[in-house]
Amino acid sequence: AANRSMKFSNRGMTLEKDINTTNTFYWDTNKAVIHKKPTPVQVVNVHYPKRSAAVITEGYFKQPSTTDYNGIYRGRHIDFEAKETRNKTRFPLANIHYHQISHMKSITAHGGICFLIIRFSAHNETYYLPAESFFPYWDEQFNEGKKSIRYEAIKEKGYKIPFHFQARVNYLTIIDQLYF
Amino acid sequence: AANRSMKFSNRGMTLEKDINTTNTFYWDTNKAVIHKKPTPVQVVNVHYPKRSAAVITEGYFKQPSTTDYNGIYRGRHIDFEAKETRNKTRFPLANIHYHQISHMKSITAHGGICFLIIRFSAHNETYYLPAESFFPYWDEQFNEGKKSIRYEAIKEKGYKIPFHFQARVNYLTIIDQLYF
Ligand SMILES: [Mg+2]
Ligand SMILES: [Mg+2]
Repeated sequence: AANRSMKFSNRGMTLEKDINTTNTFYWDTNKAVIHKKPTPVQVVNVHYPKRSAAVITEGYFKQPSTTDYNGIYRGRHIDFEAKETRNKTRFPLANIHYHQISHMKSITAHGGICFLIIRFSAHNETYYLPAESFFPYWDEQFNEGKKSIRYEAIKEKGYKIPFHFQARVNYLTIIDQLYF
Repeated sequence: AANRSMKFSNRGMTLEKDINTTNTFYWDTNKAVIHKKPTPVQVVNVHYPKRSAAVITEGYFKQPSTTDYNGIYRGRHIDFEAKETRNKTRFPLANIHYHQISHMKSITAHGGICFLIIRFSAHNETYYLPAESFFPYWDEQFNEGKKSIRYEAIKEKGYKIPFHFQARVNYLTIIDQLYF
């Protein structure tokens, strides 16, 4: 059918779930306070039934102007974006928006700890890539550079994030290494 | 009518608009990076029309588990909630949720700068109330304390936020005084 109406499911959001589990563990153990920002929705119409909760009957997804996650760790501001790819050899830049990059550049300039978490699902590997290492790839794409980053480059410039049974994407260990 | 369906408008959100304008000014002048978090929506049904944007046809507002605003200023993590009241003599505690308080207590414990922005619209005055000054009032309400804070107490414990024609709620000036 040309028109589809369907239950909203979070397909392909394994990385997001793993990060949320990790953040809950960090919160429970009082290590850090990091939250995923809600998906921005433009609410157009709301129905208010008698004696039950308001129902949004018309809304649209908006493009995020910031990264998905932020918070505080050891007194430092933390800000990151998480992306998963099935591509075995490259991480495509297409999924990241211009506004998100401006945001990340500003956070970095103001002294925040800013990075990407990139999962190569085919390799079952997750990397921490400092924003400072990411920006040159982003900027070069407009100067006849590639529209993607090679897997090997991410292996080299990034840090493999260890798995922990409760902190499934244990990225604070990398921050400890790099900043403390 | 018992059932109402209506266009979603932001009634009574003058303070929110003023803070958003202020944050845009801070961003444009490279002073700070502070954003409002999107309102959390639980998306249940989405319609995917041919050749146009996905439409959320069923969604619900969720209770926020954090504050509305956060970001970074002079290297420090910033986190705050904004509330407006028409009450002339008291600020009611009812609009703030338990989860938001836990969040604010954690942010404070981890070294963030955490506060409330409270506007008394009848007085046309807006106050910066440090989270540390707010917590005792919150905690006391469960110990036979008041369910509200007196206007006079907020005047005393808080700091009146100056108006600036572009930074309409110029709260960074208070942070400069208190922390730098
Ligand atoms: Mg995202
Ligand atoms: Mg709020």
